[in-house]
This record gives sequence, C-alpha cells and structure tokens, in this order.
Amino acid sequence: MNPIDANKAQIDQVLDQSIEAFHMYKHTSPSERMKLLSTITKQIEQSRTQLVAAAAKETNLPETRLNNELNRTIFQLESYGAACQKGYCLEASIDQDTLAQPSKPAIRKLLIPLGPVVVFGSSNFPFAYSTAGGDTASALAAGCSVIVKAHPAHPETSTIMATCITAALALCGLPAGIFQHVYGASFEVGKWLVQHSDTAAVGFTGSFTGGKQLVDWAAARRIPIPVFAEMGSLNPVFVLPEKLSLSHAEIASQLVSSFTLGVGQFCTKPGLIIGIKSDAWDNFLAALSALTSSINPAPLLHKGIASAFQNNTAQLLQQPGVSVLAQGCTPSREGEASPLIIQVTAEDWLSNQLLQMENFGPFTIAVQCKDAAALLAVAKHLEGQLTGTIFAREQELVEYRSLISILEIRCGRLIFNGVPTGVEVCKSMQHGGPFPATSDARFGAVGEDAIRRFLRPIAYQNWPNALLPLPLQDSNPLAIPRFKNGVLQP
Amino acid sequence: MNPIDANKAQIDQVLDQSIEAFHMYKHTSPSERMKLLSTITKQIEQSRTQLVAAAAKETNLPETRLNNELNRTIFQLESYGAACQKGYCLEASIDQDTLAQPSKPAIRKLLIPLGPVVVFGSSNFPFAYSTAGGDTASALAAGCSVIVKAHPAHPETSTIMATCITAALALCGLPAGIFQHVYGASFEVGKWLVQHSDTAAVGFTGSFTGGKQLVDWAAARRIPIPVFAEMGSLNPVFVLPEKLSLSHAEIASQLVSSFTLGVGQFCTKPGLIIGIKSDAWDNFLAALSALTSSINPAPLLHKGIASAFQNNTAQLLQQPGVSVLAQGCTPSREGEASPLIIQVTAEDWLSNQLLQMENFGPFTIAVQCKDAAALLAVAKHLEGQLTGTIFAREQELVEYRSLISILEIRCGRLIFNGVPTGVEVCKSMQHGGPFPATSDARFGAVGEDAIRRFLRPIAYQNWPNALLPLPLQDSNPLAIPRFKNGVLQP
Repeated sequence: MNPIDANKAQIDQVLDQSIEAFHMYKHTSPSERMKLLSTITKQIEQSRTQLVAAAAKETNLPETRLNNELNRTIFQLESYGAACQKGYCLEASIDQDTLAQPSKPAIRKLLIPLGPVVVFGSSNFPFAYSTAGGDTASALAAGCSVIVKAHPAHPETSTIMATCITAALALCGLPAGIFQHVYGASFEVGKWLVQHSDTAAVGFTGSFTGGKQLVDWAAARRIPIPVFAEMGSLNPVFVLPEKLSLSHAEIASQLVSSFTLGVGQFCTKPGLIIGIKSDAWDNFLAALSALTSSINPAPLLHKGIASAFQNNTAQLLQQPGVSVLAQGCTPSREGEASPLIIQVTAEDWLSNQLLQMENFGPFTIAVQCKDAAALLAVAKHLEGQLTGTIFAREQELVEYRSLISILEIRCGRLIFNGVPTGVEVCKSMQHGGPFPATSDARFGAVGEDAIRRFLRPIAYQNWPNALLPLPLQDSNPLAIPRFKNGVLQP
Repeated sequence: MNPIDANKAQIDQVLDQSIEAFHMYKHTSPSERMKLLSTITKQIEQSRTQLVAAAAKETNLPETRLNNELNRTIFQLESYGAACQKGYCLEASIDQDTLAQPSKPAIRKLLIPLGPVVVFGSSNFPFAYSTAGGDTASALAAGCSVIVKAHPAHPETSTIMATCITAALALCGLPAGIFQHVYGASFEVGKWLVQHSDTAAVGFTGSFTGGKQLVDWAAARRIPIPVFAEMGSLNPVFVLPEKLSLSHAEIASQLVSSFTLGVGQFCTKPGLIIGIKSDAWDNFLAALSALTSSINPAPLLHKGIASAFQNNTAQLLQQPGVSVLAQGCTPSREGEASPLIIQVTAEDWLSNQLLQMENFGPFTIAVQCKDAAALLAVAKHLEGQLTGTIFAREQELVEYRSLISILEIRCGRLIFNGVPTGVEVCKSMQHGGPFPATSDARFGAVGEDAIRRFLRPIAYQNWPNALLPLPLQDSNPLAIPRFKNGVLQP
C-alpha cells in the first residue's frame, strides 16, 4: 500500500472541516465524549484481527505483543473517557460571596478545549501511541477535534484504525470532521499541518530531530501554538554498590529483559547503566554479558530504524574508550538487530556528548565510575530524561540523597528497584520529562492528566446561570467535583 | 536615582546564587513558604509610607490608588501563601492496588518547582504586578527562587520593595539568593537573564513588542523555557440593542469610568465599544461624549508612555473613517493625557488591522455596526483578548449565543453587564487569554492558580516511603487533599 501524500489544498479542506466540527464537538457533554471513546473501543475490538495482522506485517512486532498493545489502547480510550465523566479534568471553580462588602462579582472558571489537534503518531507503538493512541484519546476527551497524520511506516494499520474511529463517530451521530486521517511521507505535509492557522495544538512521539522541527515551526507561527513532543530518552539506571553486592544477578536479568524488550524499541528503554567499579560490578557486567550473548536477533520495526541503528552503533563503537561488553547472536537477515552492550569509563563518557545520543534498538551503555563522586558527576551531566532508575538498598539510598536530588531535576519519573519499561496508565503516571526528553515537561502523555494538555481556562463574571456551560451552572447538573470559594466539593 | 545596569558577570553571579538557593528552597514545606510570604507582607506594611511616597513620585499615581494597590499586593502574597498550605496546587496523587493481578507498581505524583524564575514587572502596577507582585508571589509559593529586573520607570520603589523581601528572607532564616534584584534599562540585561542556562521560566507584564521578544529569546535557547507574558488587550465591549435602549446612560457612565480609570492605564481597559446603529446607540454615544468632555487631564505613568500615547493617538486619528467622538479638557502640562473616544464604522474597522492596536491611556474606540451581522463580523475579526464584555438583557443574550461562542474562543474572561477593569484575586479568576493577549492562554496571572505556571509533575515508582517528598508519604503528614486511585480524598 502506497498512499498518496495530501496536498496543500487537501490540508486546507481538512482543517476547514476540523474547525467546523470542533465548534459542534466542544459543546458535547463529558458523557457524550465518554460514549464516543467507548464506541471507538468496540469498533477496534471488531477489527482486532485485521488490525493485528496489518500491524504485524508493517512493524515486524509479534502478534502477542500487538494484542497486548491493543488492549492497552482500549484501556486508554476507556479510562480517558471515564476521566471525562469524573469531571476533575474540567477544574470547575466558583467564587461567590453574596455578603461581601463592598460587593464582589461572581466568578466561575472551567477548562475548555483548545481547538483542532494534529497528532503525529509513533512507529514503535502502532496502536497505543498512534492513530487511536494516547494523544488522540486525550484530545477527544478534552473536546478537541483531531487530525492524525498516518505514520508512513504503518499506513495500512493506521487506515484500519481511522476507519474504526470514523465508524464510531457515525454510530454516535457526531460529525465526521471530528476525526480526520491524512497521509504524508513528505516533510511538507507536517509543516502545513503545524502551520495552518486553525491548528491549535500538536502531539508528537518520535525522534528529537522530528519533534524539535515541529516545535520550531509552531514557535514561528504568527500565533504560536503548544507542541507536546516526546523526543527520546536514555533512561539512566544507577546501580548502587550494596544492592549490587546482594543482587547483581537479579538486577542484570531485569535489565537485560528491559533493554531488549520489543527489540529495544521503547522510549523508556534503559540506555545507560551506571555503577561503581567493584567485584560486584565486575560480576554484574559478567552476568549482563552472559545473559545478552544468548539472545537471538530479531527484526526492527522497519528499514529506516534498522539502518539508523546500524549507523548509530558503528559511530558509538568508534568513540574513545568505548569497547564491546556483550553481544547477542549474529543476525542472519537484513533488518534484524542483535542486542549489544558497550562499556566506557565515567571519564570517557563525561568528555563525549555523543554518548548521550539515544540509539533506538537493543543497545545500552555500561558506565563504570571509580567512586561515588564520579557517579554523581555522571548524573549531573545528564540531559533531560523521561525516567531515572536507582537500584539500591533502602538504607543505601538515604546516603545517596544527592543522587535523588539530581535526578529529580532531570527526570519525569523515578523508579526504585525496578525497570523503566512498562508505563502504567493511571492518573499518577508522569510520562514526560525535561527537554530534550519532551518539549514541555509541565505535561505528560500517559494517564488521564494527559487530557490537560489540550485545555485552557476561561472565566465567566456575573454570567447568567442559564447561559453558563453546564459544569458551572448553580445546580451542578453534571454532578462533578467543583471548587467553591477555593475548597473542592467532591 | 539612576541605578547602574547589571553586567554579564553580575547576571552570571546572580543566577549562580539563585540556582544554589533554589536547591535549598524547593525542599521547604508549604507552611514555610506561607510564612515567608506572610513575613514579606509585614515588611511591606512597615515600609508602606516610603513605598507609597516613592511610587507616587515615580509613577504619578495618586496615593489613595497606591495604598489600595499595596493592599492588593499584600492580599495576593497572603492568599497564595494560604493556597500553598491548602495543598491543592501540589496535585498530589497516589495509585496503588496491592491486590492487582498481575501486580502493579505503586505510582505517586506531585508537582515540583521549575527552578529560578525571572520576573519583569509592569510599569502600571508598581506594586501588585511588579517586584513583590503576582509573578513573584506565585513563583515563591511554587518553591522557585526569583530574580526581579527592576522596572526602569520605578527603580526606587522596586529597591524598597526588594529590601522588604530580603529582610523577610533573613527573618525566616532563608538564603538571600531566593530573591534577587537587578537593574537593567538596556535590552541586553533582559536577554542575558532569559538566555541564562539556569533560568527556568519567565514572567512578564508589558507591551507586545517586549513580551514577544522574550518569547523568541526563550524559544531560541538550547533548552527552551516557558515565558508567561501578558502583552496587552483591547477588551472589547459589546452593547446589545435592547439593553442599550433600557440603560444607555448607566452603561455610558460605567464605561467612561472604566476606560479612564487610572488614566486608562490598565491591561483590562475597555478599548473597543461595539454596538448597532439605532436611536439608543446615538443617545449612548451622546452620553459617552458628555461624560468624557468634563474629565480633567491627568499625568500618565512616565514620559515614555505619554509620548507613545501621543504618537499612537495621532496615528489612529489619521486612519480612514476615524473621527473624534469625545474629548476631555485639554492638557496644560507635558506628560498629561486627556480622555479621548474615536468612532468608526464596522466596515472601516474591519478593513484596518491597525485599529486593533492597543493604545495604552485614556482612549477607546466606538465601533458602529449597521446590523447584528456586522457586530458578529467585528467579534470574529478580533485577535486574542484578556476579556470580552457583553451588556445585554438576559433574554437578548440567548439570541446572541453565537456572539458568546465567538468570544469564548478569543477571550480569557467573559463579563456580563459589568466592566472589565477590576480583576478579583480568587481561584476562579482567569487573567490571561489567547495570543497576542498573553503568550500562553493555558495559564493565568491572577489568583492562586497562577502558581501552577511554575510547577511540573514528577512521578515516583515503588519509592521507599521515608524517601518520598512529604506530600506523598503514606501518612499524609501535610494533611493535604490527595488523589487516591483517581479519586480526590479531601
């Protein structure tokens, strides 16, 4: 399947329809939005076989994984819909003091949707962070219309998914313009979408180069718009000495599973493992090496990723002080990759910014520090990250409080004695982090708080009750939690 | 007083101290921050006489107004401190299901401060939106260190205020680096401050040109940072026919008071009054004219504003179709301004983008529409605004639902049968609006939610209880409202 790129006139038409549909859709109630999201999940279930088959063909991902990812996608749609109806995300608030002297106006506030949202899905999550993925689900929950640019690496999967969403809109009696699907392998299609005057926000999951380009286009508009770009992360893992001396084999096993999961193609893949030279560290490296060497090669998502992995790996191997620690079985077919761990000292790592490059695939770097000071120096030198992990004994962690402080500045999520892969979909999740991990650390892309990205506040002063949006009317017809004079009434 | 601009080396030193102080200050409890803000108010009270005298000399504002503004400043500091302690602004959230099969990690999230915040205060609010104003109060409440660049139009006032804050820090036993005060009339000082690698966010109140420059500098950084710039607004007022025929005199009186309040130097000054040609409209214009003509001239804040007002007014008067509707008494002294209303038809207004320029001072434009369609066309043509006002009978407003819809897209706050000046400090207030009114419509600058601008989420996964930040520990030692599995426990 080779879909044809949309041209400029088609993009203009898509945005015309999107803004028109938005003006209707923004007035839908939380229940109506929940119903839409839920209807989408039913359409997805009905197309599960075709979706999984298309995605397996286009992404090389195994069917079990794809079925699980589809379950996650469905859970996201359902849970963001439920969040709509719970109503916290509207942040409804009323300040009224009828006895105040001198008199005060009644002020009411809620969050309203921004407008048409353009979504650029990821290649590594053809379902959960693509056409009907987290960005689309949260934008629809917010009351925004959505335009998805199909990922050029899985256009057929994207098309089937778009059909599910379109069918759900029809079943709910909602305008088709609420969700639109365009193709565009070229640079220009993305640029037109981001720069169109009716586009109100952008969601993106992919490379730093791609994400930063969208951010720059959005900032150069006459009216700048927010871009929520998730752009990559090393997800450093610090293994502290006491813990290592107690459980080096278990930690090695967890980390090898984690960095090779999905052929290393997760944004939360642990791409940097940092520890202090000791006998336990040597044993740990030996365990990492032994576990890695027995792993079979597997195909990467597509040729572009396979060739980037090959090139990045070659470049990294040429860096001063870098040597191979462990390698899996040699690939026999084009497009396959075998797990690889390289090692380097903290001194060499610190002096070479290139070693902070994300190498998407089954690859990680073991950084050996001569002491705790060197380990802290590595932590301080890190750029913004989605996650930071510490393996430690609890008492040991107390002694490394400064490490926690450093990671709190650089990371969106901190993990204790676990691996960064596996991102729970829940309200407390933060999937986002300081630049360059994402373009805006103040928001996250996973869990119901992702809806907040596509909303803004509006206040109504002395507004007639009957003309207020439902969430703010006196009788609280939606029965949602609201702040009253600064105190939440659940 | 002619303070010397900070040089680059001094700015570097200030940021060094700010980031160091931040790493201590971010760990303070909400109560400690509340105590700091409250101690600042006590210092301000002790310096009230000097503050008001200095501001009166530097800004030409009358003492009564300045005393009221100081009260507002104190109220902001107190109420943002109280908001810290109420704890909603931390958005603490815990997801934990110990019975889940397969097992799920415990995830906890809260908002943490961004880092050093650079504040550029306004000239028109020497207290409430300047050195110890809304941006400083909300950044300190968030747990950020603050660097204020003194407004070149009131350096002495700013210096006294800075002394109050510094004294309060000392009384609270907190590092002086938490608040720093620099001078800079030159372009470069602002640029150094915004582009310094340790600066984490920027607050600004002023002109579009100034604000947009800061936004562009921040976007061009290696690591872009958020800028919250409030940049001006026309604050359109729509007077609907039935209401006008009932109360033209009362509306005229309210609007003349509002557009001349503080010599028209409020960001919420009604700068555009839109109505439909009728006898009532003619009577309304006559009333506006009569009320305006008797008003005495008054001095503007400083020479720069006076000359800009003169130039802008001259330029606006030269536009096609523009004529003078009303003028106050002729100024006798340099730097004074007299109220002025110009009138224009909707057709002429629509065809001339220059008529959307904010003219800071006692000036407004009456736009006469031939019918409701023309009035809606004016509404649709508006750029982003802080506020939008409708004078209407309640039943009449129902017929103008489309006007509400249009204003909801373009404004941050909608006012019914009132004036836009007078911005209540409360949780439900939204003081912000779509670009170019502000640089980021997703946040507001007035009320406790302004604190949210300087925070970002962080999640802790399976983190040891004793090492969690206090707001997330099992026993809820701060006794704050927290989400538990998605439901707020008040």
